[in-house]
Amino acid sequence: MKTNNSLQKELSLVKNLIKNEIIEEDTISELYNYIFKSNGKRLRAQLSLIASSPNKRKNKSRLKLASIIELLHTATLIHDDVVDESQTRRGVKSVNNVWSNTHGVLIGDYIYSKAFILMVQIGDIKILKELANATNDISKGELIQLDALQNTSITLSKLENISYYKTGRLFEAAAKSGAMLTNKDKKYESNISKCAKNIGILFQIKDDLLDYSLDEKVIGKPVFQDLKEGKITYPFYFAYKNANKKQKNQLQTILGKKKQNIKSAYNMIKDLNGFAETEILASKYFDKAIKHANLIKNKHINQEVLKLVNSALNREK
Amino acid sequence: MKTNNSLQKELSLVKNLIKNEIIEEDTISELYNYIFKSNGKRLRAQLSLIASSPNKRKNKSRLKLASIIELLHTATLIHDDVVDESQTRRGVKSVNNVWSNTHGVLIGDYIYSKAFILMVQIGDIKILKELANATNDISKGELIQLDALQNTSITLSKLENISYYKTGRLFEAAAKSGAMLTNKDKKYESNISKCAKNIGILFQIKDDLLDYSLDEKVIGKPVFQDLKEGKITYPFYFAYKNANKKQKNQLQTILGKKKQNIKSAYNMIKDLNGFAETEILASKYFDKAIKHANLIKNKHINQEVLKLVNSALNREK
Repeated sequence: MKTNNSLQKELSLVKNLIKNEIIEEDTISELYNYIFKSNGKRLRAQLSLIASSPNKRKNKSRLKLASIIELLHTATLIHDDVVDESQTRRGVKSVNNVWSNTHGVLIGDYIYSKAFILMVQIGDIKILKELANATNDISKGELIQLDALQNTSITLSKLENISYYKTGRLFEAAAKSGAMLTNKDKKYESNISKCAKNIGILFQIKDDLLDYSLDEKVIGKPVFQDLKEGKITYPFYFAYKNANKKQKNQLQTILGKKKQNIKSAYNMIKDLNGFAETEILASKYFDKAIKHANLIKNKHINQEVLKLVNSALNREK
Repeated sequence: MKTNNSLQKELSLVKNLIKNEIIEEDTISELYNYIFKSNGKRLRAQLSLIASSPNKRKNKSRLKLASIIELLHTATLIHDDVVDESQTRRGVKSVNNVWSNTHGVLIGDYIYSKAFILMVQIGDIKILKELANATNDISKGELIQLDALQNTSITLSKLENISYYKTGRLFEAAAKSGAMLTNKDKKYESNISKCAKNIGILFQIKDDLLDYSLDEKVIGKPVFQDLKEGKITYPFYFAYKNANKKQKNQLQTILGKKKQNIKSAYNMIKDLNGFAETEILASKYFDKAIKHANLIKNKHINQEVLKLVNSALNREK
């Protein structure tokens, strides 16, 4: 059983493992130090460690798997920043900002391939399959999202699909592959995977809400990026749905505009219930995550997972 | 045994397999049609098919493997074009030019992950390991090359290393994993892998020479790109090595300049033996490739591979 303390200890072992795997060439080591110095929450690695915790005999593989999940996540973030032309990430400058887009693309590919090498070392075809499918779904999600830019007729279910592919899928794969390392308990695997998937979607919904924060200091990254990029996320979606014809026109005008009157955009979306309805959607996914967490019989795992569900709901950056 | 005709037939099966694997979403299908409509030489897929040809029982896996090699190559090309900001590829506009850098990054990731899914389907851990390592080496090569921009003190052996990682490595992996599908003949695996590696490096050296062509219509892509980007390749390297102090200064001035007097740059590098010494290096790799090709006992494979060695030496685009 993992106390929170031993989970923290394992997370720092994961950090070391990643460090030892990545540092080879000077350029790469320099980039490494930059990318991993910022302290993310490592939620996905946590999920993987928790899900695999019943199996202590395969401790090496457990740490390796959590590292793989973290590497895949990091590679995705780096490519995302190139795609979004983000200037900051986790409160510090993004790779493409400090170096260049070129570095962003290549270091992302490098990190992906390192994750792939580690997966082959674990050598479990079922886990390889799950992670290959997850990687594919993630990039599919990004492509669908790109295709949906500026598309005000997008449906809610399409938005939920994007959130699942983009974010929920790696949470799910972290838990599922972790559970696969433990035993043949299919029910446990299914419950923790479904719980993780819903944590991921909840996490993404909260992310979309945070992007509409009035104060960027609070969340450590620029705000109103989605609106500026023409990306329709939940707050905009619900506001648009509730708008009359004149308001719809106004919303269309600000969607994709690089210069925004943030206060006025915020108020428009708020008045049209964009934030309130997004919160309702978040609580729907919160409930689903809780439901599946409570189907996990192992009390300690149940408790650890519930902590993650709550932290996803209450995230403030 | 493969006649050239049956190799062509297999290559078109590979094309179909890729098509069926890739097309799922509208965006992706549109991008697919664009990317694969241009007819590359598919040298790497050919190498893979030739190397695996002794095993007819595993024909499905053979075609899958050749598709994987082609997908990995395509993903690399697409990311390269983003990195180099290339406007054309194989005589047609590049993905990043027709769509955007964003599409280039994401579709590249998507294609990588598809290759990964197919690898897992083959389910051979040794092949997975070889392809994981190759993918990692390729991105390492790109990062090292990026680091070497504008660096006139780069050594010949570093340049050869870059050519190996960037290009030779996938040729090698194509042959090696193909051979792994056949039998346990370690000598055959080693000979065809080494031959392929040297074909790849030769291919890259020729590519570097072609970039210094005076007429871009002949090669179907812009010329003098390497010089404009500040990328030191063999012709520049040898010219710089042979230059006196004044000439070195002149070379440094044109390295990385976006606007070039192409005729004058060409003549300077020619007069300093840049092209002649690069040709000598190319023939060194040609000889190595021939030597290993001739160690392959299977006569038909030997003949097919020799054709590829010759086509790499004589490539004109």
